[in-house]
Amino acid sequence: MSEQGNGTGKTEDNTVFIGRKDTMDYVTAVVTQFKAGSDEVIIRARGKAISRAVDVAEIVRHRFIREAVVKDVRIGTEAMVSDQGESTNVSSIEIVLAR
Amino acid sequence: MSEQGNGTGKTEDNTVFIGRKDTMDYVTAVVTQFKAGSDEVIIRARGKAISRAVDVAEIVRHRFIREAVVKDVRIGTEAMVSDQGESTNVSSIEIVLAR
Repeated sequence: MSEQGNGTGKTEDNTVFIGRKDTMDYVTAVVTQFKAGSDEVIIRARGKAISRAVDVAEIVRHRFIREAVVKDVRIGTEAMVSDQGESTNVSSIEIVLAR
Repeated sequence: MSEQGNGTGKTEDNTVFIGRKDTMDYVTAVVTQFKAGSDEVIIRARGKAISRAVDVAEIVRHRFIREAVVKDVRIGTEAMVSDQGESTNVSSIEIVLAR
């Protein structure tokens, strides 16, 4: 599992976790991963950020890394536990971009 | 291409288009399609509704149609033309649930 990581959403394992920042911040993070030599970048999101994850993938492959293709899209459900110990389910997505 | 169709988002070709209604309205629409004998239901959404589409697919297969699996997830970009003739791009998703 990847973690939120730093401000641009990058983590060490070529995964970019999408949060509440500007879409273009995450686009930059993904493009940076490719420019650094990665052949595959995984874009992950939960809940309402899922729509933004799709935006990021589409912008990257149409505007910046034209040779990138959507290798896989996985959806799932994750259990989130609140500070009060309550568990709720949230949808998740993983988009694998590869070149 | 499917159209928005009636209030529950159903169309004739086993496609449920996700809009701004309650998530459970679309869950019901998908479940109804399966109960009516469909072996495959396609959940489609654009823009911010993409997150809700994933919620719908996950709720259907975890709570209602346990034998349903995610057969395919496709993401894309569609051009939308406003009444003023301006064209903007919007991300889209198609989730194929099958049993």
